[in-house]
Amino acid sequence: MIETDILIIGAGPTGLFAVFEAGLLKLKCHIIDALPQPGGQLAELYPKKPIFDIPGYPEVLAGDLVTNLMEQIKQFQPGFTLGETAETIEKQEDGTFIVTTKEGTQHKAKAIAIAGGLGTFEPRKPLLKDIEFYEQENRGVDYFVKDPEKYRDKNIVIAGGGDSALDWSIFLSNVAKSVTLVHRRNEFRGALDSVEKVQELKSEGKIKLITPAEVVGFKGSERIESLDVEINGARMHVETDYFIPLFGLTPKLGPIANWGLEIEKNAIKVNNALDYQTNIEGIYAIGDVNTYPGKLKLILCGFHEATLMCQSVYNRLNPGKRYVLKYTTVSGVDGFDGTRKEAEKAVVKSID
Amino acid sequence: MIETDILIIGAGPTGLFAVFEAGLLKLKCHIIDALPQPGGQLAELYPKKPIFDIPGYPEVLAGDLVTNLMEQIKQFQPGFTLGETAETIEKQEDGTFIVTTKEGTQHKAKAIAIAGGLGTFEPRKPLLKDIEFYEQENRGVDYFVKDPEKYRDKNIVIAGGGDSALDWSIFLSNVAKSVTLVHRRNEFRGALDSVEKVQELKSEGKIKLITPAEVVGFKGSERIESLDVEINGARMHVETDYFIPLFGLTPKLGPIANWGLEIEKNAIKVNNALDYQTNIEGIYAIGDVNTYPGKLKLILCGFHEATLMCQSVYNRLNPGKRYVLKYTTVSGVDGFDGTRKEAEKAVVKSID
Ligand SMILES: Cc1cc2nc3c(=O)[nH]c(=O)nc-3n(C[C@H](O)[C@H](O)[C@H](O)COP(=O)(O)OP(=O)(O)OC[C@H]3O[C@@H](n4cnc5c(N)ncnc54)[C@H](O)[C@@H]3O)c2cc1C
Ligand SMILES: Cc1cc2nc3c(=O)[nH]c(=O)nc-3n(C[C@H](O)[C@H](O)[C@H](O)COP(=O)(O)OP(=O)(O)OC[C@H]3O[C@@H](n4cnc5c(N)ncnc54)[C@H](O)[C@@H]3O)c2cc1C
Repeated sequence: MIETDILIIGAGPTGLFAVFEAGLLKLKCHIIDALPQPGGQLAELYPKKPIFDIPGYPEVLAGDLVTNLMEQIKQFQPGFTLGETAETIEKQEDGTFIVTTKEGTQHKAKAIAIAGGLGTFEPRKPLLKDIEFYEQENRGVDYFVKDPEKYRDKNIVIAGGGDSALDWSIFLSNVAKSVTLVHRRNEFRGALDSVEKVQELKSEGKIKLITPAEVVGFKGSERIESLDVEINGARMHVETDYFIPLFGLTPKLGPIANWGLEIEKNAIKVNNALDYQTNIEGIYAIGDVNTYPGKLKLILCGFHEATLMCQSVYNRLNPGKRYVLKYTTVSGVDGFDGTRKEAEKAVVKSID
Repeated sequence: MIETDILIIGAGPTGLFAVFEAGLLKLKCHIIDALPQPGGQLAELYPKKPIFDIPGYPEVLAGDLVTNLMEQIKQFQPGFTLGETAETIEKQEDGTFIVTTKEGTQHKAKAIAIAGGLGTFEPRKPLLKDIEFYEQENRGVDYFVKDPEKYRDKNIVIAGGGDSALDWSIFLSNVAKSVTLVHRRNEFRGALDSVEKVQELKSEGKIKLITPAEVVGFKGSERIESLDVEINGARMHVETDYFIPLFGLTPKLGPIANWGLEIEKNAIKVNNALDYQTNIEGIYAIGDVNTYPGKLKLILCGFHEATLMCQSVYNRLNPGKRYVLKYTTVSGVDGFDGTRKEAEKAVVKSID
């Protein structure tokens, strides 16, 4: 069982920054995220796009903001359970909580911060007979590339016409034995350099392109052995080890919707911007996942909410102790990894 | 009369970022600050010190954060009334406000955002007979260096032993005819390189040092002509055009305290983190200057408050119009200066 002070559900910008603010208060954090990498929407949906409204950044790429946040929290050594979905929660008699993922990992914490954003990203799935069977672990259908190494020296078929399909085709063309990209149009919709790179890899024979075409069926008893692909009314047969449809993601609040929290417009109601606590004491909701009068679903608002949440947890866990706000500039930052950051102190020196 | 949509009082980080958020909503801003430069506490008190808790910045010098904020808001062309203190406010019948500075400049606005931080910085003054007389404009005593050019080819005496006294002595040694630094101890308390630089300039004869000593009196009928300086019990006479005591600043809420706003613990009470409006409709208080349950006087909180405030002003000025939040990444940013920033759009391109 993983134990921590604050268990954060969601490794988006809000959840990540919460680790920093908790660390200043000497509280340990562990983060669960259903996605294989931290960064939430920024990493999954628009890593290469610029954001213009992060205070103090006239412009920053979403992916760089995530990198910077990871760098900022490193010193507080958060734990991560990535690629797993928080599914159930249980309040213990001693006031702590146990959160269990769909995959079975258990986490025990003194406080819960739900930073689940728009929820878990559910892949859009192709409507294919028997796909439920092949979706099961290791039967050949994957909706996310969690670990590229899984595909080393394998034959893979990727379907889709957007950035994900393009970028993973490019990346895996160096890893897999063969990469086939199937798309129902001849046109691809993505960053210009990605489209051109795929064109180039196709010319070099490193990516096989089948367009305009659609995967329409599977063959294989234990796991996928081949796909039926329809191209211009004709049907062809493509042998493969893996089929990776990348048709985009839609967010769903997901299992958290069943945790007994007050829900309004697909978001969790919190106590009017006081400390972003929900109707269950000890469970907080911060960032895109919460709602209160005047709520704005912006990254900078999540940062503020995470900060107030941490203060509230601190006060809950240290009843009666008076907290005095310390400026990082003045008091420095003591990392859990033994590092210490501090401003240069003024020196007293005589001049003669 | 200067006219604008939102008149911001205080050019600290909160006031500056408010310009950006207002700009996204097509609202024009004008900022008044009593200090000669923007940046509030960051620029005035610790420009060369690192801050560690700005989200996405593992470390940033306070002065650099101000520079970045100025760069971020440039496109929205805010107006500035610097070096003037907002003193009175009048609500007009049409709901607009007129704010007049101590110096007499009038500003008319549809909404007021007080981002006054800890208030105006009052200089600590030496207790000297007749100093009130010489404090008057152009009689020779200055507590701030607003425009270094004022001292070109003049004789100046600076008093103090901290960073301000050291840094201005260094800077003005290249501007003034002569710089004399008077301090009551031999020891100076400041950044090591500043202390060493003063030592060096002293050796080169570019700064004259009188320590341990104190200015104890003035001579001059119309304006300062010379100072009496006591050194080791003896008294000397220093001819000078200007006397600049830099003994530090203490913040005072100042004239805003008389505007009929609810005040609690030297801060302005706002409506419980809803939109940071005060008890007077149309007047908001954001950043360090406000208070509400759970308030934290942090820069990142000011950013959030500024953002919600701007939304509220927008709704007040556009009753009935439904506002749909737009992401900067998706919709881009249209600057008032004609610039446009936007993310690269996906391209649709066929591969053959
Ligand atoms: C294209 C686009 C452009 C945008 N541009 C801007 C912009 O310019 N400025 C701006 O401020 N905002 C912008 N946004 C919005 C911004 O991305 C969100 O406000 C931000 O991501 C919210 O952060 P978060 O940490 O609250 O949630 P998210 O980033 O959504 O992260 C939530 C995480 O929680 C995980 N999760 C959810 N439920 C579970 C569960 N049960 N178990 C495990 N993990 C779970 C999800 O997998 C996800 O990783 C944009 C959004 C999009 C889509
Ligand atoms: C040494 C030090 C270290 C700090 N370190 C950190 C840190 O690490 N992290 C952090 O988050 N915060 C830190 N802070 C606090 C941070 O500086 C403040 O939270 C921040 O400056 C508040 O910004 P603001 O814009 O609300 O107000 P301010 O920065 O105080 O700016 C207010 C401005 O309003 C002006 N003003 C006031 N009244 C009037 C008037 N009537 N007319 C005209 N102008 C007026 C003032 O001149 C001032 O320029 C630190 C503060 C200090 C002193």
